[in-house]
Parts: sequence; C-alpha cells; structure tokens
Amino acid sequence: MARKPNPIRSDIAWSNRERIVVRGKDLPSEVIGVMNLGDFAYLQLTSKTATPLQSRMFNAILVTLVEHGLTPSAIAARMTYSGAPESMQAAVAAGLCGLGSVFVGSMENAARLLYEALPPGTQGADLDALAREIVARERAAKRILPGMGHPIHKPVDPRAPRLFTLAEECGMAGDYVKLIQLCAAEAERVSGKSLPVNATGAIGAICCEFGFPWTVVRGFGVMARAVGLVGHVLEESQRPIAQEIWLRTEDEASAHMRPE
Amino acid sequence: MARKPNPIRSDIAWSNRERIVVRGKDLPSEVIGVMNLGDFAYLQLTSKTATPLQSRMFNAILVTLVEHGLTPSAIAARMTYSGAPESMQAAVAAGLCGLGSVFVGSMENAARLLYEALPPGTQGADLDALAREIVARERAAKRILPGMGHPIHKPVDPRAPRLFTLAEECGMAGDYVKLIQLCAAEAERVSGKSLPVNATGAIGAICCEFGFPWTVVRGFGVMARAVGLVGHVLEESQRPIAQEIWLRTEDEASAHMRPE
Amino acid sequence: MARKPNPIRSDIAWSNRERIVVRGKDLPSEVIGVMNLGDFAYLQLTSKTATPLQSRMFNAILVTLVEHGLTPSAIAARMTYSGAPESMQAAVAAGLCGLGSVFVGSMENAARLLYEALPPGTQGADLDALAREIVARERAAKRILPGMGHPIHKPVDPRAPRLFTLAEECGMAGDYVKLIQLCAAEAERVSGKSLPVNATGAIGAICCEFGFPWTVVRGFGVMARAVGLVGHVLEESQRPIAQEIWLRTEDEASAHMRPE
Amino acid sequence: MARKPNPIRSDIAWSNRERIVVRGKDLPSEVIGVMNLGDFAYLQLTSKTATPLQSRMFNAILVTLVEHGLTPSAIAARMTYSGAPESMQAAVAAGLCGLGSVFVGSMENAARLLYEALPPGTQGADLDALAREIVARERAAKRILPGMGHPIHKPVDPRAPRLFTLAEECGMAGDYVKLIQLCAAEAERVSGKSLPVNATGAIGAICCEFGFPWTVVRGFGVMARAVGLVGHVLEESQRPIAQEIWLRTEDEASAHMRPE
Repeated sequence: MARKPNPIRSDIAWSNRERIVVRGKDLPSEVIGVMNLGDFAYLQLTSKTATPLQSRMFNAILVTLVEHGLTPSAIAARMTYSGAPESMQAAVAAGLCGLGSVFVGSMENAARLLYEALPPGTQGADLDALAREIVARERAAKRILPGMGHPIHKPVDPRAPRLFTLAEECGMAGDYVKLIQLCAAEAERVSGKSLPVNATGAIGAICCEFGFPWTVVRGFGVMARAVGLVGHVLEESQRPIAQEIWLRTEDEASAHMRPE
Repeated sequence: MARKPNPIRSDIAWSNRERIVVRGKDLPSEVIGVMNLGDFAYLQLTSKTATPLQSRMFNAILVTLVEHGLTPSAIAARMTYSGAPESMQAAVAAGLCGLGSVFVGSMENAARLLYEALPPGTQGADLDALAREIVARERAAKRILPGMGHPIHKPVDPRAPRLFTLAEECGMAGDYVKLIQLCAAEAERVSGKSLPVNATGAIGAICCEFGFPWTVVRGFGVMARAVGLVGHVLEESQRPIAQEIWLRTEDEASAHMRPE
Repeated sequence: MARKPNPIRSDIAWSNRERIVVRGKDLPSEVIGVMNLGDFAYLQLTSKTATPLQSRMFNAILVTLVEHGLTPSAIAARMTYSGAPESMQAAVAAGLCGLGSVFVGSMENAARLLYEALPPGTQGADLDALAREIVARERAAKRILPGMGHPIHKPVDPRAPRLFTLAEECGMAGDYVKLIQLCAAEAERVSGKSLPVNATGAIGAICCEFGFPWTVVRGFGVMARAVGLVGHVLEESQRPIAQEIWLRTEDEASAHMRPE
Repeated sequence: MARKPNPIRSDIAWSNRERIVVRGKDLPSEVIGVMNLGDFAYLQLTSKTATPLQSRMFNAILVTLVEHGLTPSAIAARMTYSGAPESMQAAVAAGLCGLGSVFVGSMENAARLLYEALPPGTQGADLDALAREIVARERAAKRILPGMGHPIHKPVDPRAPRLFTLAEECGMAGDYVKLIQLCAAEAERVSGKSLPVNATGAIGAICCEFGFPWTVVRGFGVMARAVGLVGHVLEESQRPIAQEIWLRTEDEASAHMRPE
C-alpha cells in the first residue's frame, strides 16, 4: 500500500529562463546594486524590505557578531584549512559547527526569556515588577541570567551601550530593551556585583523589538561568523599559524608519556 | 632536543577590558552603526575601508550569491536540521560543505584564468589578441571556459549584464571585465553557440578589478550562502519538507529490492 | 599582568622517531593485525582491551548502527558530494552533522534514564517497582519513554531481540537490560499499545551494562554512521542520485510561484 | 514542458516491517553478532563478505588510521566541542572536514599512481623497469613521490613493514606491493636519501591489491578517524584542553597590537 505523498513547497525563491526572483523581488533589478548584504539577509528571513532605520539597526547587529579574534571557532577553521586547503568551504563549516550553546546560546536565551516575560503584543506591562520577578525566579532556580556581565570586558562590554544608543536612534528602544536593562539593574542590586547588559543581551533584546522568533537569533551569529571565518581562512592561507599550534599542543600534551 | 617555537600572530583583531578593535577600527564607534555587513566583510578581508563605489559593487557581488532556491546545499542543510534542530549552526555548516568545485568553482576559475592572462599591473595589453589566444588554447586543451553559458538561464543569465552595468557605474569596468566579455564573444564566434558571460564569470572578472586574490573568491560565495542557508533553515523549522523528501527518496530508491 | 598557563595534557597517544603508542599499546605490534576496528574503538574510548565477549557485543552494537538506507543523513552526504566531489571527507561530515536529538538522541536518553534509575554500583534493586515508577513518572510528565516502539518495524524491531540474545550470550544481560524490558512491558500494560524495546533502547541498556558514560553513547552512532556514509558517497560517485533529487525538489517546491 | 524524471535507485539497503537487509544480508541474523565493524565496512563498500584473510588485512588498514595524537583534526574537533558540547556529532564532523589533500591525500595518490602504472588485470609486467620509469618521470616533473619518507618516523615508519608483513601473511603481497617497494628503493638510489615506504604508501598499495577504486581510499581514513575523534571528544569532555589552547593562542597572536 503506497504512502500518499505530501506536498513539497518553499516560498523563498523561483527562477526560469529569464528571471530569478527571491522573496518576490526580481534579483537583478531590485536586489543587485540596490540592497546591501545585511538588507538582503533581512529580506531572506522576513520576506520584508527593511526600512532605513531597520537596515541600520539590523546591519549593526550583524557587524557586532562577525569577529571576536582567535576564538575556538576561528582555530577550528584554521586547523581544518591546514589539512584541506582545497576546501575552504569546509574550513568555514568546521568553524561554524562550534557556534552552539556556549558562545551564541546566551543571545537566544536572552530573547527567549524576554519573550516569555512579555509575549508579543503585550501592552502596558509593569516592567519594574517584571524585572524583580524574573531576577528572583532565576536566582531561586540557580540559573544564570543570560546576556549580563562579561569575563573580559569590565566593567562594561562597550558594544552594549552602543547598540542601545542605536536602538534609541532607530526607534527600537521599546519594552524589551527596557526590560533587559531593568533586569540587569535588579541583578546588580540583589547580587552586589557589576552585571551590566553585554552585547549578547543587547542583541537578544533588540531582536525581540524586531519581532524575530528567538529560534532564529542564533542564525544571525552564524551568518555573521561565516564572514569573519573567511577572513581567518584567508589570513591562514597567507601567514599560517595552525601548524605551530598543532606542534606545540601535540608536544606538550603527550610529554608525560614519551620516554625521552 | 626541544623544537624552537615559531611565533603565532594574527593581524585581524584585538581586545582588552575597554576596547574591541578589528582591522584597526574601534568596533563600537567605527563599525557598529557605521558599516553594513558587506562593508565590514570588505574590511575584514582587505584591511581597507570600502569607498562608496566599492561598497556598492562589493555588496552587489555578495547579494548575487545568497540564494539560488532548493539547491543541493539548501537540501543538505534542511536534512541536517531535521535530525538536529538543536544545532542550526551544524545545519548551515552541512550546507556550506558542498560549495566546492561544481558550484562555486567556476567563479574562482574565471578569476584565475583572467589573472594568468593579465597579471596585476599589466598595462596596455592587446585584449582582442589575448581573448583569441585564450579561447584557442582552452579549446585545444578541450577545457570548458569558466563563467560562460548557463544550463537554465538562456540566452542570457540576467545577473551578468546587471553586474556589468554596475561595474561601469562604479568605475570598475576595466581590462578584466573587457577581457572576459571578449573571450565570450570569441567563444561564441568559434563555437557557433550562444555563450554569454554568466553571473560567476562576471563576478570572477569584477573580483579581479578589485584585486582580490583568486583563492579568496570562493569565500564570497561561502559567506553569502551562509545568509541564504539560515533562511532555508528558518523555513524548514516553520514548514518542514525534509522528511517528505526523505520518505519519497527512500521509498523509490529501494523499491527494486523490497519483496512486496 | 600575564595569565598563568594551565597544563595541556592528553592520555590517548604518543609517538617518537621509532614508536607509535595508543592507549599504552604499541600500534604496529599490538594493534595492527591484532585488533579489529571495533576492538580498537573500545580501546580508544576505554583504555582497556575488550575481552572476546566484550568484543563480540561491542562490535554488534556498532554494526547495528552503520546503515539505515537513504536517511536524511545519507541524503545530506550525497548532496554535499555532488557539489564538492573533491572533498569526500566534507560529504561524510555533512552527513554526520544531522545525527542529533531526533535520530540518535533516544539511545543516549535511554542510557541516561537507566543510569538515573540505577546508579552504577546499585545492588539488589526492586526492578519491577522501579519500572512501574519510571513509567508512571514519565507518563505523568507527558514525556515519551526513550527506546520503545518503532514507526516502521512493527510489532517488533528485529534488531532488539537479537541484541538481547547476544547480551545473554556475552554475559551482559544484567539489571539495565532487565529494567528496560520491564519498562517496556509496563508501558504496554498501562497504554494498551504495543511498545517493545527497539534497537536504540537495547543499545542504550547494553551500553549501561558496559559502564559507558551516557554522554558517549551518541558517539557510537557517529562512528558507525561514518562507515555507512562512506558507502553512500561511494555509490553516489558511481551512480548519482543527488541531482535528480535536487531537480525534482526545486521543481515542485517553487511551482506555485513560477508564472508558466 | 515538464522534465522527464530519472529513476532514483540505491543498492545498499532496504527494510520493511519485519526485515532490515544491507547488501543482501539480513542485518539481525547475518550481521549483528557475526561481523565486526571492519568486516561490515567491507561489506558496505564492496557488497562482498570478507574472507578471514581479507578481514584481517582490511581491519589492519583501518586500525592504522584511527589515531595520530593531537592532530589539527583532533584539535578542530575539541575546539568545536568546547563551543557546542550538546552536538558531539558536529565536533566529529568538524574534525573530519580537514582530512583533505595534506594528510590523507598521499594514500590515494599512491594508489592512483600504482593503478596508472599497472592497470587492473595487468600480468607479467617488468616491475623493475616500471619503477625506474616512474621515479624518473616524477623526478623530471619535480613531483614528490607519494607514500615515501616521513617527517617524524625515521629512518622507517614502523607501521609500513608491519603492514607489508601482514600483506604477505594474507596473500596480498602482489605486484602493487612489490612495485611501491621497488619505487622506494629506486628513489633512494637516485636521490641518495632514505625514502622507505611509509604507512600511507603501504596502505595505498594494499588497497590496490584489494582492487578498491583509488577514489574510495580516502574514505578509509575518514571512517577510521571518526572512531579516533570520538575518543578525543570524550577526553575533552572529561579533561578539557580546548579553552587553554584558545586563551594562549589569542593572547600571543594579538599581543603585537594590544596597547598594554
């Protein structure tokens, strides 16, 4: 007995002999030479054309996430390139594979927490009360509040205030942005530690202002890091460091077992 | 006897408590809110700030490469997401792994061929003679000229003339652009077939006008496709098709072996 | 102020001019020609040499996981190979990326549940009472019991009884194996549905008998599937199907948008 | 006008309610508990059951390739795991992505060179003359002979003589094995350097004795390394080193740019 097939459908793009259309836009005439890469990312994900303010804010989020130095992700990409220089795409892919819960998770966790506290469409919430409630609940559950504090950038992650200023300028400093700032102030008050909102918290909140589902927030990190990783692979091809990291690591790690 | 360590050095970024600097730019004040994603990609790869014309042209190249429908790369990403929805970064990575010689190779091959014919710094070359020579040589060697013709877009890939028009507007329609157009004309003349420059040929030539090493050209496809793949993964999370493709494929592929 | 470095150490392998030693075994004389691949996997993961019974049981687990037809993982690998045939390693990698919570998760979830119910070293537990407790608790929490039932193989996944018979023969049908079978019987009793232990449940339980940490159980699926995926990539190189899947998918998915 | 679909077919496996069959073998009764992982890999790739001698030789090849210490591939896997511990499959995938031309290429290059010199079915070739011809040709073309010499294991890679001894014992020391040994002797004679066959050369030659297509030889490295990488990921989860490698690398690499 044959299974009845379900339809296969995608709404992203179509093409024929003469035309290539993405999200309803004619690629040659309405995208190429018209939109920058960030704006096209916005169209690809939302089916909507970014307004100038949305374009400025969304590109700001993306450029914040491109480059963070020789992270584990960049090292993985360089290691991979050193073994398969003919497959730079696989080197970038290897670097992306590590963008999981540890590094980009706090961005989506911040967005998720904010959406749970303020479901889309909520009006006139008591944000101060909400912040106290969130901080008390997370502390009681011994969970770390996502998007606050930073191991290196102290006392303040300099990207966060810049992103918040831009959010003001772009008309996007709404309740989600206010709530995360109130949560950070409350967390500082009850813990006695400096816990300002960091870049991932700011981005999580601004993504809520945009209305992006929290599940896609990690995707912004992924697309931005792909840009950064191509830069690392290019530098690795010009002035390699992977082999030196390898030899030092191998040497030290097995020294306790080697007879000589 | 201990190995003498070699230095480990990268010139891309540094940070300390107060600052985050990429390619000499202060990230919060000189990048965030100032550069779009394409411009920052240009900075990341070249250490230089794109001029407005370079910005327009470079972003045009990138947006051309973002989205091509349900390609093998998009299908691989969706398949991967269906098995590991908690790791969308791995789904994008799986999609990137296939951006090899078959799909993005012609872009870098076009750039390589043009650079070999016109090494950077060449002045006053006889482009007509060069085009005849290239086409004769490649035909004699039974090699396919990269960046010409298209299996679907006939007679003309509509992205190519658009990219060439932009190159004119941006002051980048130099000898590399002219040479690939002359090669296509010559290839049409001697083969009797319609072989206009396609999008990958146009991008390969314009990358030479920028002076990008041909080895990095594939990287533009990789970063752009990462943007497109996040869009596919998002759609897969909202309206999945991977399972249906799987069930149909499995069913048909093994039908000749199944007893019933 | 400089950070004080922590040591970097690995206990897996070392080599020098004359020797290559893995987990204390001389690779040329004690591994090559002596151990099969499954036994060496056991050594690599546990630092111990498998007894003949352990070897038989562990290889049985691994071969169970190698091949499952044209799964999403196999399709992703074939799609990737079709775009980058020069990088078969990346095609296998793409296929592995999807071995996440949906497909291999139930194996580790079964092991985890069993370990939580019967911490290593537990003696003389009342397995019947435990099974009733587990099933009641999971049903109350509306969680699916891992490792039971199967969408295709009905009423019984034929791999499970075979694995349990082997576990008997190899002296590994201890409390974990008994407990998962009791859980399945109890789940059938209270739900009225046929819910026999499936292959992933049997493997999860037997992994507990071995004493493997539940976190590494997924790794057995990963290494076994790598073997299976090389087979798919080889067949794709000899008789390709990726392009046909692509063209059909693209065609159907965008038909509702195309004008003609 | 609709495209006429081509058939989609795979000969690897099928299943229905009662049965799971791989390469014509009933998985529960003819594979599980009967074949070890290496033997099943042989079946998966060749559709044939390995004889006891083939089983011994093929497993010997695979175990040779499992573990090489903290290689770039192992470091990439550990880096990836440190960022996404919930996706160990992606960590293994990242490690596999680097198994390209640099590390596993010489194995397939050796097999290819041997097949080109001695096409399958060749009888009674003058192997001495062939070896002289090959070495002279490759030296004239300034190409490196694949599978000879080793940067660390001097004067002899201890895996190679062991593999050749096994090949004798297993009845697989035929013309391909003889030819690569003659090539190495000739290369030593004309270069005056010690250039014994190394492990990749021995494996390349023995793969030709098996009759494997040279294009699949890399796949043996891929499946074997997947086993090794699971071991590294497991050790990383128990005693992490990725973060320390990261912090040291980041610190040193950007020191020349940091103000303090």
